[in-house]
Amino acid sequence: MREIYLDNSATTRPLPEVVEAMVQTLTDNYGNPSSLHNKGLKAEKILKAARRKIAEKLAVSPEEIIFTSGGTESNNLAIKGIAYQYQNRGRHLVTTEVEHPSVLESFLALEEEGFEVTFLEADRYGRISLDDLRDSITPETILASIIHVNNELGTIHPLAEIGTIIKEKNPNTFFHTDCIQSFGKMLVQPARSMVDLLSISGHKIHGPKGIGVLYKRKGIELRALQTGGGQENGYRCGTENIPGIAGLIPALDALPDYTEENPYNQELDRLKNHFIRGLEKIDRKVIINSPEDGAPHILNISFPGIKGEVLIHSLEAEGVYVSTGSACHSKSREKSHVLRAIGLPMEQIDGTIRVSFSTYNTIEELDYALASLAKQLKTFF
Amino acid sequence: MREIYLDNSATTRPLPEVVEAMVQTLTDNYGNPSSLHNKGLKAEKILKAARRKIAEKLAVSPEEIIFTSGGTESNNLAIKGIAYQYQNRGRHLVTTEVEHPSVLESFLALEEEGFEVTFLEADRYGRISLDDLRDSITPETILASIIHVNNELGTIHPLAEIGTIIKEKNPNTFFHTDCIQSFGKMLVQPARSMVDLLSISGHKIHGPKGIGVLYKRKGIELRALQTGGGQENGYRCGTENIPGIAGLIPALDALPDYTEENPYNQELDRLKNHFIRGLEKIDRKVIINSPEDGAPHILNISFPGIKGEVLIHSLEAEGVYVSTGSACHSKSREKSHVLRAIGLPMEQIDGTIRVSFSTYNTIEELDYALASLAKQLKTFF
Repeated sequence: MREIYLDNSATTRPLPEVVEAMVQTLTDNYGNPSSLHNKGLKAEKILKAARRKIAEKLAVSPEEIIFTSGGTESNNLAIKGIAYQYQNRGRHLVTTEVEHPSVLESFLALEEEGFEVTFLEADRYGRISLDDLRDSITPETILASIIHVNNELGTIHPLAEIGTIIKEKNPNTFFHTDCIQSFGKMLVQPARSMVDLLSISGHKIHGPKGIGVLYKRKGIELRALQTGGGQENGYRCGTENIPGIAGLIPALDALPDYTEENPYNQELDRLKNHFIRGLEKIDRKVIINSPEDGAPHILNISFPGIKGEVLIHSLEAEGVYVSTGSACHSKSREKSHVLRAIGLPMEQIDGTIRVSFSTYNTIEELDYALASLAKQLKTFF
Repeated sequence: MREIYLDNSATTRPLPEVVEAMVQTLTDNYGNPSSLHNKGLKAEKILKAARRKIAEKLAVSPEEIIFTSGGTESNNLAIKGIAYQYQNRGRHLVTTEVEHPSVLESFLALEEEGFEVTFLEADRYGRISLDDLRDSITPETILASIIHVNNELGTIHPLAEIGTIIKEKNPNTFFHTDCIQSFGKMLVQPARSMVDLLSISGHKIHGPKGIGVLYKRKGIELRALQTGGGQENGYRCGTENIPGIAGLIPALDALPDYTEENPYNQELDRLKNHFIRGLEKIDRKVIINSPEDGAPHILNISFPGIKGEVLIHSLEAEGVYVSTGSACHSKSREKSHVLRAIGLPMEQIDGTIRVSFSTYNTIEELDYALASLAKQLKTFF
């Protein structure tokens, strides 16, 4: 059966050249970068090349890059690392109600440890109010963490405005942003938005699972969560996942270079708009929960009266893969905290699916998926 | 040039079937195990199969297995996870001076946070005194962490005796052991030694980097260090590194099954003894720092008057790869904390190399390495 994979916000298929780079590293460059001999040096070269490459993409210095085991670790390290390191300056933290669970749970853990956390509310489209943000930052605020692109809705937060507001209110407040969904799909450069820390995941950009990146601006300290042999300047110890890091290089190479003039992926935008137009032709009530100006690769839609979970299994029978909420907690069968936060009625939440695109999807694949969707929807009352 | 890799305690070459399993997963089973559709289920099946396999090897239940990003994370999670979770019971911790940096630094971090830590001294061969251990455990001791096989010397700690002493003195003290060097080379089964938590690393057993295992006995709680989407029962969140986990399966399959009657790897023992006999024929003073009854794969030797670092580069020129101390902190150029802890004179520490074997090494390779060693030693005054 054909397979149309439209769950690219959950994870992506590694590119053939990613697999190749990993195989080459696993087979020939299996040394430990901490080893003094040539096998170690070769492994260290891969580490350096990947560090340079990701630094280039973000327009930062290689020394500002910390490799982690994934996006969740990057978010945990940024948030807890700052909170523990700078708690003597203040114990107030700011974030939003519409963060990824790895951010949300990090703040909840800190709250339990006695930190004071402000969770900013989001509007119908998952956007925080900039006035609320301004009001929330106090002299005691050591960290504000605001997601760039929401993983369920695709809503984009205006990082530059947010950075300006945070720093105007308190220049000592560090600004972290979870760019796991945005990186690779649009222009992401910390300096443009006064971002101090920024999280990225390998497997969302057709790279390998098990690899993440944390950008940490020079001069900022972090309490390490994983201590040991001093790797990654002591911020993240443990033998580096060199095959995963090697796999990151071709994944980064395959990404477009975004500029001020070309800030979004046009190809993804074309796919999304094609899908929206296709939805309009379907003879069934469809509500698009994603904002019109959302990220080019995420479309959150509701079919009132239909169970999203049932619908995704119907589509699966046709070889079409989409998700209900985010993959991150879909197994928990909890209602999406994001869709609750934006105030969707329960019936609408229940009938929600998320379709997420990759540049490796084709218009023809979308037509197949739309036809399958129309066909399956007819089987529901 | 020929390559004789004798640095298997730093890292090992992944088996061809490990690479194959990873490629297959990267290419076909790239789903996120949290996804509800078939691609997610297939990924989850790999996760379950690997969990069953490692549980079998340790003779424990699959629910007692937590996948991590590597040995360093397993050690951090066990030690900090227990300390934070049970600090209300007591704030005293016990470990040794001859642990891996990931254990040592975890305890040093906890000490800075106000925990009281006893670091047990080691004898000339890196062995703690069981009397000291008994004396160290108090009603306030919530955790004792004792390394099974020392990564620099190969010294084996008698886990069963240690477990008995800990539990006799305080049945509420949890017993963690770092088995990163021992697992795969000898019988490692937590129940035999009253072990509550046990760390394993994938890349030390010809599996992939970026994957580790923590065994945690049922009923024990842990404060998670990495919070998020609830993976690994909430003890270790983040999208699972499925390709790495898939690669672990053939690595585990390739390991011998050890029993009470056959507790060590005979093949490794044969290699080590062959190397020792070869050393005896070398016309230069050689001191073997490893104990006679040490692990079958690690040999720590000193050539007084020679710089270990220079020697390893001379051997490298012949295609023979060995290390000075452990890889874990060899780049820091610090003198090995283990060799200092066992009281070796500085000249002896400086002249130390570690040779570490794998069952994939051959007698013929060792003869080549020994000949290279003899040849290179002649060039030193």
